[in-house]
Order: sequence, then C-alpha cells, then structure tokens
Amino acid sequence: MMKVGIYGNGNAAWTLGQALKSKSEIQLSVSARDPEKGSALANELGVDFIPESEVETSGLDVLILAISDGAIAPTAASFDLVDTLLVHTSGPTPMDVLYNGSEKVGVFYPLQTMSKGKDTDFSQVPFLLESDTEDGLTLLKKLATLLSSDIREMSSVKRLALHASAVFVNNFTNHINAIATDICAKYNVPFDLLHPLIDKTAEVAKSGQASESQTGPAVRKDRITMMAHQSILSPSENEIYRLLSEHIQNRHETEL
Amino acid sequence: MMKVGIYGNGNAAWTLGQALKSKSEIQLSVSARDPEKGSALANELGVDFIPESEVETSGLDVLILAISDGAIAPTAASFDLVDTLLVHTSGPTPMDVLYNGSEKVGVFYPLQTMSKGKDTDFSQVPFLLESDTEDGLTLLKKLATLLSSDIREMSSVKRLALHASAVFVNNFTNHINAIATDICAKYNVPFDLLHPLIDKTAEVAKSGQASESQTGPAVRKDRITMMAHQSILSPSENEIYRLLSEHIQNRHETEL
Repeated sequence: MMKVGIYGNGNAAWTLGQALKSKSEIQLSVSARDPEKGSALANELGVDFIPESEVETSGLDVLILAISDGAIAPTAASFDLVDTLLVHTSGPTPMDVLYNGSEKVGVFYPLQTMSKGKDTDFSQVPFLLESDTEDGLTLLKKLATLLSSDIREMSSVKRLALHASAVFVNNFTNHINAIATDICAKYNVPFDLLHPLIDKTAEVAKSGQASESQTGPAVRKDRITMMAHQSILSPSENEIYRLLSEHIQNRHETEL
Repeated sequence: MMKVGIYGNGNAAWTLGQALKSKSEIQLSVSARDPEKGSALANELGVDFIPESEVETSGLDVLILAISDGAIAPTAASFDLVDTLLVHTSGPTPMDVLYNGSEKVGVFYPLQTMSKGKDTDFSQVPFLLESDTEDGLTLLKKLATLLSSDIREMSSVKRLALHASAVFVNNFTNHINAIATDICAKYNVPFDLLHPLIDKTAEVAKSGQASESQTGPAVRKDRITMMAHQSILSPSENEIYRLLSEHIQNRHETEL
C-alpha cells in the first residue's frame, strides 16, 4: 500500500485526487495551506485530511504538490521531509526547487490541462517523470502506471523546452488566430472560409515539416502583396506582421 | 456556348484548364506570353492555342489571367479588350488593376492552392467572384457553377482581408510551429507529445473563440515561467517570444 498525499485544493489537486482515490494500491490523503478548503476537498474525495503541521510525521511515501507554479518553491521550503518523496506537477518548474523541502524529490507532470469538476481520462495522457534516485523514479512509475499507459522520463531542462514549445504551438498560435478572427470580423468576411487552411496548418505541423512547407508572400518576397496586407492592418497587427515576415525571410535565406 | 480563354501556363492555368476543358457549355482555349509553353499546355488539354496577338480579335467571352500576382498588372496593360471580360484568379490583387486591359473586368478566385499535375476537386472549393457589372457577375457565376457548389461574391478589399487572415492562420502559424519543432529538436524532446495540443489549437480557432480561450504564462503574467522559457531560447526565438507575449498581455489588459 502506497501512502500518497495531495497538497492543494485547486484544479490539479481535484483532478488527480479523483483519478487516484479509488485505486486499491493507494491510501490517499489531502493536505493544504488552507485547512478549510483542504478538508472540503478531502470530504469531496472521501479521503483523510492531514493538517499541514502533521505532514512530516504522517509517514507519506509521496507528497504531490498540486499547486500553482509560483507557489511551489515557497511551499516546498515550508517542509523538512526526510523519507517522503516530494514532487510537483508543473511543466516549466525545475525539480531543484524542491530540495529545500525534502531529501527526496521528483516531478510527476501529466501533459494535460486539468479543470475542477471535469473528470479527466488520464489513460492516454503522457506522464513525464523525473527523480534524482532510482527509488524515487520507481515509486513515481508505479503511481503513473495506475493512471496512464504513456509514461516517460524527462529531465527538467527537456520538460522546460517542451513547455516552451507548447507556448509556441498553442498560446502564440492562438493569439495569431485571434488576430485573423479580428481581421475577418472587421471586414465582415466569413471566417469559416479559413477552416480548411487551419486544418491544413495543423496537419503540416504534426508532420514535423512546418519549416519545409513555408509558403506565403514573405517567403516569396512578394512585396506588393505584403504592402497591400499592411495597408489594411492595425498598427498592432502590423507590428506582428512585420516581425514574423522578417523572421520567415531570415530563416529561409539562411537555409538557401 | 461560352468562349473561355485561359492565359498562362503554370499551376493555376493547368488546374483550371483541367477542370474546364470537358464542360460542354464551354469552348476552352489557352493563351500565354510564351507561345511554346502555351501551345504545350493547349496540347496537353486538347484545346486550341490562341497566340497573344490574336486574343483581341478572337471573340472570347472571358479571358482568365491565371498568372503570378506580380504579372497581373503588366499583362493586363498589354491588352486593349472591349467585349471580353478580363479576370484574374488572385486573392490579394484588387480588381482595379485590370482596367488598363479591358472595359469589362472581374475576379475569379478559387480559395485553394493549385499544383500542376495534381487534379483538383473544385466541387467544395469556394469561388470568390467580383465584377463591376451585373452582366460580368452573371457570366462568372455561370462559369463557377460548372465547377463548384460554393460561390460567393466578395469585394477586393474583403478578399484582401481574407488573404491577410490566411497569412496569419497559415503562414505565420506555420513559422511559429517551425520554431516549436526546432526547440524540441534542439533539446531532443519528442515533438509528438505536442500533437494533441496542435489539434486543440486548431479546434479552438475554428470555433472562433481564440481570443476568449487565450491561456499561458503571458496572459497569466507568470514572469518566472516566461524568464525560464527565455533562458533556453535563441535570440531570434526570444524576439518573437517577447513581442507575442507583450501583444497577448496588451490585448487582454485592454479587454479586462
């Protein structure tokens, strides 16, 4: 029986709690800075609540910090654990920040957004694991195996690179798509005309051939079309248009 | 019987020629600046070749300039047509540039990439039409109806806005995806981990909710994560990271 504590009361704590509570291999408990909210989550999950002051003597095998990225380092520093493996669930946060809180540390990162109240099927979600010891890694693998069939080891720097890449393919692309939506709305053009192109763009991205597949006026150095586009864009849209066009040209000049 | 001439010998001329040659309502011919290449395409399609010097006396109802964007204005200016409707097939090019070549002008723009040697099924492809007269529009609708069930009128400025939007959702997004591919390659991270996120991004874009769905460190003002990302990016990647993050923050500050 593995004694697992989840620390937190937000989206990630709720979602991981839901997924772990019924596993017979696990004795789950909840801790949190705020005892009221922590007890509420423990009640909701039907598991024990461990007050923060008792975490160190509770004999947990693993304590999962399921809290916001910025809270991880200060929260870890408030513990002084010896035999409990202290892990976080964050993509961009290095494992090292946990050493202030325990002698044994690791990362238990499910590559998925999690929302409270929305059951997450983790069975296909990649779990990216890291630990400084074989024992720690074995423990995390055992835990992840209960939830998913896709388990991978990944160092903090690789996980950070993955997270930065995710910012590009999701957050930045999303902003670019929002601008296109604005332009169509401003000129009363049906945005659905672009749907096939959006699908095609995603398909090319997944093939890994985005760079080789670059098209458009920038890579063609079609200045007339670029000037025509710029004439209808807002100053803010133009700033992005110019920078990205310049980068596309630089990239493809270097390659030629 | 509609007498239709295609002017050009490249991808668009070949593809439109293939689609139009067998329509019984049409008598198709080919013209081109280069008589050798033009005759070759006419032969390939099994239709007549009309030398450039004879276009004006050939009694064509429509002459379709299926040539590169930059060639449209100078090519149009080399004609002096009266009864022939002169049209181009370009997204970003205004209709006006054709007035130097004919008294009757229009646009016949299939929203699709066309490649020589690859038959294009136009049946679901939107044809965006424009003409300055009802007669011209009627003629273009008749022609488009032979190829597609999706026919829409669109002004030059709207078509330009659509084309600029396409540059954002395809060309710029593609460049952003190429950068993500680079980052993963540099840190030896499996890019396929990002496939679900790429699909999700496209799905959100098609819902028209990109702006409302913005997530990530920039919109959260998570400076620690942004600095961590920037520490592993190249100078060129950082320039894009900074600009897009700044624009995401500005957009969402204004909205709050």
